[in-house]
Amino acid sequence: MPDAPLEVDVYDTTLRDGTQREGISLACSDKLRIARRLDALGVAYIEGGWPGSNPKDAEFFARARDVAWSAELTAFGATRRAGSDVGDDPSLRALLDSGARVCTLFGKSWDLHVREVLRVRPDENLRMIEESVIFLRAAGRRVIYDAEHFFDGWEADAGYALETARAAVRGGAEVIVLCDTNGGALPWRLEEIVRAAGARLEHPLGIHAHDDGGCAVANTLAAVRAGARHVQGTINGYGERCGNANLCAVVPDLELKLGLRCLPDGALRELTDVAHFVAEVANLPPDEHMPYVGRSAFAHKGGVHVAAMRRSPRSYQHVEPALVGNRSRAVVSELSGRANILTKAEEHGVALDHGADRELVERVKQHEARGFSFEAAEASTELLLRRRAAGYRAPFRLVEYRVMTGRRDSGQEFAEAVIKLAVGEQVVHTAAEGNGPVSALDAALRKALAPAFPEVASIQLVDYKVRILDGRDGTSATTRVLIDSSDGARRWSTVGASPNILEASWLALADGIEYGLAMKSAAQARAALS
Amino acid sequence: MPDAPLEVDVYDTTLRDGTQREGISLACSDKLRIARRLDALGVAYIEGGWPGSNPKDAEFFARARDVAWSAELTAFGATRRAGSDVGDDPSLRALLDSGARVCTLFGKSWDLHVREVLRVRPDENLRMIEESVIFLRAAGRRVIYDAEHFFDGWEADAGYALETARAAVRGGAEVIVLCDTNGGALPWRLEEIVRAAGARLEHPLGIHAHDDGGCAVANTLAAVRAGARHVQGTINGYGERCGNANLCAVVPDLELKLGLRCLPDGALRELTDVAHFVAEVANLPPDEHMPYVGRSAFAHKGGVHVAAMRRSPRSYQHVEPALVGNRSRAVVSELSGRANILTKAEEHGVALDHGADRELVERVKQHEARGFSFEAAEASTELLLRRRAAGYRAPFRLVEYRVMTGRRDSGQEFAEAVIKLAVGEQVVHTAAEGNGPVSALDAALRKALAPAFPEVASIQLVDYKVRILDGRDGTSATTRVLIDSSDGARRWSTVGASPNILEASWLALADGIEYGLAMKSAAQARAALS
Repeated sequence: MPDAPLEVDVYDTTLRDGTQREGISLACSDKLRIARRLDALGVAYIEGGWPGSNPKDAEFFARARDVAWSAELTAFGATRRAGSDVGDDPSLRALLDSGARVCTLFGKSWDLHVREVLRVRPDENLRMIEESVIFLRAAGRRVIYDAEHFFDGWEADAGYALETARAAVRGGAEVIVLCDTNGGALPWRLEEIVRAAGARLEHPLGIHAHDDGGCAVANTLAAVRAGARHVQGTINGYGERCGNANLCAVVPDLELKLGLRCLPDGALRELTDVAHFVAEVANLPPDEHMPYVGRSAFAHKGGVHVAAMRRSPRSYQHVEPALVGNRSRAVVSELSGRANILTKAEEHGVALDHGADRELVERVKQHEARGFSFEAAEASTELLLRRRAAGYRAPFRLVEYRVMTGRRDSGQEFAEAVIKLAVGEQVVHTAAEGNGPVSALDAALRKALAPAFPEVASIQLVDYKVRILDGRDGTSATTRVLIDSSDGARRWSTVGASPNILEASWLALADGIEYGLAMKSAAQARAALS
Repeated sequence: MPDAPLEVDVYDTTLRDGTQREGISLACSDKLRIARRLDALGVAYIEGGWPGSNPKDAEFFARARDVAWSAELTAFGATRRAGSDVGDDPSLRALLDSGARVCTLFGKSWDLHVREVLRVRPDENLRMIEESVIFLRAAGRRVIYDAEHFFDGWEADAGYALETARAAVRGGAEVIVLCDTNGGALPWRLEEIVRAAGARLEHPLGIHAHDDGGCAVANTLAAVRAGARHVQGTINGYGERCGNANLCAVVPDLELKLGLRCLPDGALRELTDVAHFVAEVANLPPDEHMPYVGRSAFAHKGGVHVAAMRRSPRSYQHVEPALVGNRSRAVVSELSGRANILTKAEEHGVALDHGADRELVERVKQHEARGFSFEAAEASTELLLRRRAAGYRAPFRLVEYRVMTGRRDSGQEFAEAVIKLAVGEQVVHTAAEGNGPVSALDAALRKALAPAFPEVASIQLVDYKVRILDGRDGTSATTRVLIDSSDGARRWSTVGASPNILEASWLALADGIEYGLAMKSAAQARAALS
C-alpha cells in the first residue's frame, strides 16, 4: 500500500490498446501474467480488454475473477448502437457480463465521426453517450468515459465536443478522459484545450495520447500541467500505429521531474524489470534505446563521455539510473573476466581447483561465440562449472540420436526420435514419437532415463523459446534455444545453440534434464547425511 | 533547388551523433552513401564526423572532397585544450585539414562540467571558446557553435551559460546551438530558456535535443516556437543512449503542423524512403512504429478502425500518409472484419467473387486460431486471397516430405530432406542435405523446382524467425515461423504454424517460394501483353 496518497491515477491499457499494435498477439494466459505484474507494480487501473469485441477478452475477465487484485481491473466498450435500446445492446451487456466493477466507455466527440462514421444525428450521439453511462451506473458500475478524438473534435467544433463530454458527466462518469486518438496533437495546443475544457466542465479529467506526431509523452505531461490527474498509456508504448504514450517514460517524468506521486513507494525501481517482462511475454525484442528503461538508456559509448562519467556521474545522465531500476554502463566491451567466473562459482558453492577459472573463462567465450548465451541460462552456467569441479559425475551421456519427421501423401504428419544413451555402465537404445521433432526427442530421452532415474517423471519442460541469431543467413543462421524446466518446486533455464535447430534443442533439453537429476541426487545426499 | 526560401535550417548529425548509438558502426563508404542520400533530400547541413577523434572520420572528409554537394558538409570538433595555444591544437588543426567550409565547434556551458570534467577556471573556458572560434574564422571557415549542456548550465548558473554563448558570438560564430545534451529537459521550461536566451543574445539560435525524457521531438518544436531556426537531429533518431531528436518526426511536424518550410519542394515525400535507406545501410531493423515513416505508422488493425477508414480516411489518420511517402494499410488479424479483407483485396488488385470475403474472414480466423499470424506476413495474406480468386494456379503442390537429422556416435551431425512435389503434370521426387533440417528442406524444394522454374534460383531466403506460442505447453506448443524472401528487388514475408517446428517451417518456406514464382509469372505476363 502507498505510504502517501498518489497524486496521479495511472491507467494501463497495454492489454487492450497495446494489443492493437501490429505484431502483438497475446494469449489469455499471457494477459493474465502481464496483469499480475502490473498489479504488483501498483498502477491504479488495468484495462483488461474489450469483452464485447472478441472471445479471448471475455475469457480474460472470466479467469481474472479468481484472482485478488489490488488495482481496479477495467473492461472497455463502446456506447450503445444508434437507434436501439440501451438494454438490448450486446456490447454493453458484455461489459456487465465481464464482472468488472469499473467500465471504460468510449464515445464520439468529433462531429466528423458522428456524421461520416456513425452516420447519426449529433443529438442521437449525445443520447447514446448519456444513456450508456446511465445504464452502467444503474447496474452498479463505476464509469470512466474515454472521449475519443476529443482534440480533433474541439478544433472542428469545440461546443459540440464539450456537449459530448457533458452528456457523459450527466450520465455519471467519474472522469472524462480526453483522447488524442489520431496522435497528431502538439503539446502547447493540447495544454490550452485541456485547460479550457477543465474550466468549462469542472469535472475530473484524464489524458490518452498517441505518438503519431512523436509527442505522446510531452502531450501527456502537458495535460497533467493543465490539471489532468488520470493518465492512460501502455508499457513500452505499445499501441495502434505508432503506439500509445509510453508509461515507462511518462511515469518517471511525472515522478522525478514534476514531483507527482504515481506509484507506491519504491515501485519506480521496478520499472525497468516490468518493461522487460512485458516485452518478454509479448515476445518482442525490447527497445534498447527507450528512455529510462532501455538497456542503452544510460550506456555511454563516446570516449569523451565515458571519461567524463568517471569524473562526474551527473555529467552525462539526466537522472540517477537506479531510480528506475536501470544501470549505467560503459560500452567498450562487456566481456567476462575471471572475477565473473569466481563470483558465480561462489554463488553456487562450487569449489574450483587452481587454473579452472581461466579455463572456464575461455570455455564461456568459445560457447558465446557459437551462439550460446549464459546470462539467461543459469542452470547451463552452473553445469558448466560443476562439470569442471572434482567429484561430479554426469547422470547420462549421449551416444547418438536421430530424428525423422515429415508429412505423408495422406496428409498425415509424423515425428519420431531414436536415441542411444550411456547411463552408468549401460547403453540404452530406444525410440519415441511426438507431435513434433522436439517433443519426440524429449519423450525418447525420458523413456531412456526412466528405468535408472524414475524421478525424471517429475521434471517437466515448461517453456521453450527459439531465437535466430543474425537472421540474414536465412535457414543456415545460428539457432539459440532456451528451455525452462520445473520439478514443481523449482524452475531452471538451460541453453543450446547450433545452426541445426534440433541439435540446439537437444543441447538445451539434455542440460535441463541433467540439471534436474543432479539437483535431486544432491538433495538426496544431503538428506542421507542429516 | 527550393522554389521558395527555406525557413528552418535542417542540420543532420546522423553520421556523427547518430553513430554514437550502441550497435551502430558505419564504414566510410556507408557514410558516403548516407551523405549522398541526405544531400538529395535537401537538408541544409550534413555533419560528416569528428575528424580529430578518429581516422575513419578524417578519411570521410578526404573522400567527400571529390563529390559536388548541394548541402554544406560540416566537420565537428572541440574547443582548444585548456592552457595551450590555439595554433598548436591538434583537434582544431584536424578541422582545418578536413577541408570543410563550415565547422561545428562544441564548448562547455555548464559550470559543473567546467569545474569537474575540464577542471579549468571559468574564465579560461570562455577564452577557450572565443579563441577557438576566432582561429577558425581567421582561416576562412564559417562556424556553428554547439553550446553543450546549455539547459543544465542555465539552471545551474544562467549568467555563466550566457557568457559562454557570448564568447562564441564575439569570436564570430554565426549561430549558437543550444544543446540539451543529457536529454532530460521538458518542453515548456526549454521554451522559456530559449526565449530568454534569445532576448539576451540577440543572435540566431539553434536546438540540439536528446530523447532521455521522451521529449526530444517536442523540445525541438518548442525551441522553434521560441525562435530557433536551426534544427539538429538524426534520421530515425539514432544517437547516444536514447537517441537524438528524430528528424523523420521533427521535419514533418514543422512542415505539416507548424507550416515552416524545412526542405525543398517535394522532398518531404522522400522521407519514408530515406528512413528505410539509412536503416538498411546501418544494418538495423527499421522501427516499424516510428511516427510518419514507420511501416505501421498508418496501419489499421482494429476492425472498428478499418471500417471507419473506409467511410472517412481522416477518421484515424492525423495527416495524409502520401505527404511523407508512406501509405495506409489494413492489417489482417483475428481482430479483423470483412472490411479488412475487402481493403486488402483492393490493395493487391485481387477480384473476389460474391461471398468470398465472409469465407476468407472465417479462414483467417481459423488459421490464426491455429497459430498463424497474417499481419506480419503480407505475402501469405495475398496468397490466401489469390488462391480464392478465379484463375489462380499454384506453381506446385506438395505430395509428401520427410526430414532426418541427428548426431552419430562419432559426433558427426547430419540433416537430410526427401521431398515429393507435383509440378504441373509431373511428380518430382528428390532429396538434399543441409547444415540443419530447415536448410535441407529449403535445398530439396529448390532442387525439385529448378527444372520447371529456373527463376527459383534468384529467390533467396533472407530471414527466418521462430516464435513459440504459449510456451508453457513445452515442446508440444505451437510454433510460428516467419520467413522473409527476396529476389534482389523485392522482399516479402510468409508465415507457417504447427506444433511441429519443421511443418511450420515448411509452410512458410513453400509460401515464400510460391509467392516469388507467382509474382515472376505475373510480371512476365504483363511484359508479354505490353
